[in-house]
Formats: sequence, structure tokens, C-alpha cells
Amino acid sequence: MECIKVFAPGTVANVACGFDVIGLAMDAPGDEMILRRTSEPGIRIKAVHGADLPLDPAKNVASVAVQALLQKYDNPDVGIEIEIFKHIHPGSGIGSSAASSAGAVVGVNHLLGEPFTKKQLVRFAMEGERLACGSAHADNVAPAILGGFTLVRSYRPLDITSLHTPGELWVTVIHPQIEVKTSDAREILKQKVLMTDAIRQWGNVGAMVAALYQEDYDLISRSLEDVIVEPVRSILIPAFQELKLKCKEAGALGGGISGSGPSVFMLSKGEENARKVADTMNIVYAPLGVDYKIYVSRINTAGVKIID
Amino acid sequence: MECIKVFAPGTVANVACGFDVIGLAMDAPGDEMILRRTSEPGIRIKAVHGADLPLDPAKNVASVAVQALLQKYDNPDVGIEIEIFKHIHPGSGIGSSAASSAGAVVGVNHLLGEPFTKKQLVRFAMEGERLACGSAHADNVAPAILGGFTLVRSYRPLDITSLHTPGELWVTVIHPQIEVKTSDAREILKQKVLMTDAIRQWGNVGAMVAALYQEDYDLISRSLEDVIVEPVRSILIPAFQELKLKCKEAGALGGGISGSGPSVFMLSKGEENARKVADTMNIVYAPLGVDYKIYVSRINTAGVKIID
Repeated sequence: MECIKVFAPGTVANVACGFDVIGLAMDAPGDEMILRRTSEPGIRIKAVHGADLPLDPAKNVASVAVQALLQKYDNPDVGIEIEIFKHIHPGSGIGSSAASSAGAVVGVNHLLGEPFTKKQLVRFAMEGERLACGSAHADNVAPAILGGFTLVRSYRPLDITSLHTPGELWVTVIHPQIEVKTSDAREILKQKVLMTDAIRQWGNVGAMVAALYQEDYDLISRSLEDVIVEPVRSILIPAFQELKLKCKEAGALGGGISGSGPSVFMLSKGEENARKVADTMNIVYAPLGVDYKIYVSRINTAGVKIID
Repeated sequence: MECIKVFAPGTVANVACGFDVIGLAMDAPGDEMILRRTSEPGIRIKAVHGADLPLDPAKNVASVAVQALLQKYDNPDVGIEIEIFKHIHPGSGIGSSAASSAGAVVGVNHLLGEPFTKKQLVRFAMEGERLACGSAHADNVAPAILGGFTLVRSYRPLDITSLHTPGELWVTVIHPQIEVKTSDAREILKQKVLMTDAIRQWGNVGAMVAALYQEDYDLISRSLEDVIVEPVRSILIPAFQELKLKCKEAGALGGGISGSGPSVFMLSKGEENARKVADTMNIVYAPLGVDYKIYVSRINTAGVKIID
């Protein structure tokens, strides 16, 4: 087992009311990576296909995450070579850097004979996120590694829970190919929020988690509401309000901004609804003169997978 | 079936991080009520034992709640007589008015042949709360009627969900017999809160709901944290910090202020721990020179019960 291929899923962070705490993994899009154990110690990025990303191991999130793993591993002579096939566009807001970090640490853990638990791997992958955006957040790497819906309760100490994923839940994502910098998306947020809005938000979070366990799609729909972040950030995304309204009319349970944008996600019950939502996204975006891609996927409950 | 006796449970609202949204029902203390159908139309309060509460049907929460029910019932000739045996001290913060409202509407619904659903009964009982505290909140009447843990997601429209209740969960409550007015407890709250605190709170709410479904007592413990309301309100309750710390040392999972106080609740796994917590409450409060009562109870999953 000297060489393996992994699939690393795209992820949606900031699932509506669950800003900064709830994320989910998708079956598509996702990256592929080939990881090889080498006789020469150290970590090398052999190539990155499909995106212009650094080959310098100190500057690539995949190698930085693997470096964090190897620092906790007791053999300093391990050598790892990484080849990345990017299908998740960097800057899309669906966890491009997280997929690279998550795929790399899950793959290397497999090559080493599974010395670490999935939750330990999340910590290592978070170091990739620290490189990518300056903060070691777990919003995307947790669902990428654990699969399904995840909730980050706390960072100090790190406390992550896998939530139940209803079997018929699908996700449709549109990625408008415009740039929204995570730092800009953070800066426009207010430092204080109204108590009444905060209460409404945590009522929705509680209801959404209950709805996932109860597989109550109507309650999922009612609780997919973000009264705090979406009203501020949605101005950065072309035709956001129209897109959301029409997608719900087409049968979506609801949705919102994926991560810090520009992608927008919609959840639906069943594939047929998810595809109708994709058609609607096309209808809304086609006249706008903005390039975009649309993905339709089941919720991925397995996380990063070893595929070869 | 012209005369019945009901048990109406005490309730804990504002369960830690679940301020304004999560409540739970207890097996003790609880009120008893005798409800009788009379040939003479109208609602009468025959007597209130154990507390000095109004007999005027326009001023008693039980009759006001029943009045709301009868307004939706198509027979104007219904006559109801109510006798109340209060065991839940008014002003204790464990849902005294809610028990009277909830017990009355569940009992009358039974006498009329169950024309209304439990969720409809919650609406009627909320009218009793409107009389008691000026706002038709559901924090206590929802768990009193539905039993177990409940979550109020929204008031417009009213959206209440029953949450799963782990089987070994017990609650210990201490009622320090001092007065904390709900209006005072509301006034000291800030109108705005830090975004970082709000995120931490809804992370805890999500985790607590997940923990209830997973029956994960450790996660219940970790998520029983309120970074927004408790720091402000706890100054109104004698020895609150010491009480909470010592109860957790004695084995409590965690807890907080019940409703708007002055009662304090602690959750524990199993009766033995809940009783140790009661002993600890005694040790902390005995030297303070404040009268108090302590209750140890399972979570009541049935809500108001017809007992005779």
C-alpha cells in the first residue's frame, strides 16, 4: 500500500442559521489526489492539475496539513508525494482548500496504517485552513473528513459532533464565477447583533438539528433561515434574493450562502427536486452575463474516500 | 366524565444556552386541579388551595386559558368549575402560572372529548401566560403540555417541536424564596450581544439538541453553557456561582437559572447523582439565612396527566 488515490468532497459551511458552526459534505464536486509513500523523507507536491496552486510544500495546504500530521507521528523518516487533481475551484466557497487538506491527511493516515482517529485528522487539516485563510477553522474540514452534517460547538477545546443526515436530502450548488474574498465577507459583518435576532437564530439552529434527527423535511425547511449574516453578505452575490425565492418556488427546502460565498446552496428532498432547483438556477443566472457552474449532489455521508 | 383530576407539572424554561427557546417538564413539583363540567354556562374558580391567587375568572390564568379554549369551541353553553391545589410556588421560576394554564386546558379538553390537539392547547395556555406576565410566551406551557424537552423555534408563526428526552436524565431544582420579578430580570438584559458570544450560544444550542437525540450525557454537559444571559442574571441569585460549581463537582452535568429565577436547576445522569446534587444544594444554602426548597425529579415526558 505505497500509493493510493482519494476522493475529497466539496463542503458547504455556514449552513444558514448555523453560521460558523454547521457544515455539510457533498458527493460532487470533489477533488482527487494521488498520495505516494516515498523512500526519501519529507513532503513533496508532485503536481497540481486544474488550478494554479503552489508546489512549494510550505505554501500548499495539503502538504502543510500532512506536515501537522507527521509532527505527531513518531517516525521522522516518512516521505510523502502528493499529486492533486482539483475539481473544486479555489475561491468558490465550497471548501476547495479544505478538500485538499482533508484528502491529504486522510490519505496519509491510510498509508501509515491508520494511526490517527478522524477527529485527530480534523485538527491536522485545520492547519491547512490556517494557511489558506489565516484562521484554523473547522467549518469545512470537519464535514470533509467526517462526512454528513457536522457541528463545531467550540474551538477551545475543539468539540465537533457529527449530526444525523436524513437519507433523502440533496444539495444543489451554484458557483457564480466572481471573486468574494473571505476577508471582505468577514469585514462587513457587524460585531454586535440584536438579542432578538440572536435568539431567533439559535431557535432555528436548535430546530434544524432536531429536524435532521427527526428526518422532518418541513422543519428543515422552516429552520433554514439566517437573520444575521445572510442579510449583510447576500449583497455581494448577484441576484441572490431572486435566486433563493425562485429555488424555493421550484421545490427547494431552503438554503443560503455557502461559506463566505460566492456559491449559493439549496437543500431539497429527493433528486428530482434538486434537479428542478438546478434548472431554476440556470434560468435565473443565464441572462446575468456571469459565468457559473451548477452541481447537484446527495449529501456525502462518508467524507474523504480511498478510491484506489 | 363530568369531573376529573389533573396533575400539572412544574417546568424549567431558558435551559442554559436555550434562552427563550428550550424548556423541560418535571415530575415534581406539580399542581393538582379538579375540573368539573357544570350545567350552568361560564367558567368559575371554585377555590385555590396553597397560594393566594384570584378567584375572579378574568384574573386567574387557569380560567383565562380555558376561556381562550372555549372561544374556539362551538358550544357556548359549556360550564366549567375549577379547583386548584397549588404546590408550585408562584414566582418561583419553575412555571407556576404555566402549570395552572396548562392543567386547565388539558383537563377541559378531556372533559369535552378531546376536540383540540396538544399544540392547539399550547396556544390557549399561552393566553394564561399573557395574563401572568404580559407576554404570551410558550417557554413553560409547551413543556407542561407536551412533556419532555421542547423547543420554540418561532412565534410568528408559532412553531414548537418536541425534542427527544434521554431516559436517565434527572433534574434537581432549588427554589430560594426570594423575589425576582420577571420584569426586572428582563430589564437587565442587554439589547445587543457580541456576535462571537451569539455564535458560541447557537453552537451550544445545536450541540445540546444533538446530544439529547444521541443520549450523549457528556455532550449535554459540555453544551449546558449560557454565555449571554446567565452572566447578567446570576447576580440576582444568592451564591449562584458557588452553587453551580459545587453541584458540578458533586456530579451534575450542568444547569443554570430556571426561567427568570430565582430557582436554579441542575441536570444529572441518574437519580443517585441528582440526589447528591440536592445534598450539595443544601450544604451551600443552609448557612445563607434564605428559606429554600429543593426538588429532585425525573424529566416528565408525558406533560399534564389526567390522574382521576
